[in-house]
Amino acid sequence: MKARILFSGGKDSSLSALLLESFFDVELVTCTFSLAPVVEIAAEVAAKLGFKHSAIEMDMSVLDEAFQLILDDGYPRHAINHIHLEALEKVASLSPGCVIADGIRRDDIAPRPDQSSLRSIEDRFGVFCVSPLLGYGRAAVNDLVNRYLVIEEDLSDRLDKADYETELRQLIRDRCGDEKVKEIFPEHIQSRVISRK
Amino acid sequence: MKARILFSGGKDSSLSALLLESFFDVELVTCTFSLAPVVEIAAEVAAKLGFKHSAIEMDMSVLDEAFQLILDDGYPRHAINHIHLEALEKVASLSPGCVIADGIRRDDIAPRPDQSSLRSIEDRFGVFCVSPLLGYGRAAVNDLVNRYLVIEEDLSDRLDKADYETELRQLIRDRCGDEKVKEIFPEHIQSRVISRK
Repeated sequence: MKARILFSGGKDSSLSALLLESFFDVELVTCTFSLAPVVEIAAEVAAKLGFKHSAIEMDMSVLDEAFQLILDDGYPRHAINHIHLEALEKVASLSPGCVIADGIRRDDIAPRPDQSSLRSIEDRFGVFCVSPLLGYGRAAVNDLVNRYLVIEEDLSDRLDKADYETELRQLIRDRCGDEKVKEIFPEHIQSRVISRK
Repeated sequence: MKARILFSGGKDSSLSALLLESFFDVELVTCTFSLAPVVEIAAEVAAKLGFKHSAIEMDMSVLDEAFQLILDDGYPRHAINHIHLEALEKVASLSPGCVIADGIRRDDIAPRPDQSSLRSIEDRFGVFCVSPLLGYGRAAVNDLVNRYLVIEEDLSDRLDKADYETELRQLIRDRCGDEKVKEIFPEHIQSRVISRK
């Protein structure tokens, strides 16, 4: 069975791929709004890990809706969740009979799709939504990452990654300026995967 | 790193072991109150799967507390959850530095330990609590089981299994009679693992 994993080039989605590769035919998929070079970044990491990789173009209206959510809220949680669910649905619609996986961990707050949304996607598109890391806490994930992956880490505004935050930041920067980005997104450490160990 | 998996001989804890065996030194552990021959049942399945297996004797006061919970509630959810958390804690206390895993799935209602209880066990005993199947829905689990395991299924009162329910049923039968068992536990299909495919 094929497993298509939503892939950002970060340690969580990379580790999800490693956990699934013994059981499924893994292919990494990066969803993009073409506002930032996220596909190139993700494709490079995917190649280093030795996985097939493809890009899926998302409808710009999804990012617009996320932009509105984030401006209304003043924080990114619901916006990131909205994009993630739309990405799952988009990939599911193109992948009947497949596992659609992501890199969500036990401690993640966003994205964090609720069970009923996942069941709805599974039922409507005949897919299996799987989060291989959902039952792993931060320390267990870090242990596996340290044993199986070489990563680089830096502050989130200095590390190019292929996640939704990158393109959402870009849209906010284009429309509202850099100050608004700093106001909305707390500074945090991001990771990018270099290779397998 | 060693992963000790709470093992009932059922498909979920068996599948958890298969998911972890590429990444950890897996050992199966069955917690028992010695009210039913659960250790023998679990040890037989563990041997068929090719895993090390051990038994851990639980304090009878835990089953007594569960008995009181289930009589007060009239349904098994909180009682099963109580035994599971106590079992995680007992195994954690004997396994510093290890992963302590279980077979809980996305759709399970009980046992279903909350995040703060898991973090508390992790912090107090220096372990990593992991539920490898927590991000898998029923259909995805069934697909993996069908591909990797030979199982037998039967109604829950006819299949001997090495789970908490077996011993809790036995205690209720001993103290209150068979009718009380039927009143509290809804009839449902249980599985037992025969071998790998």
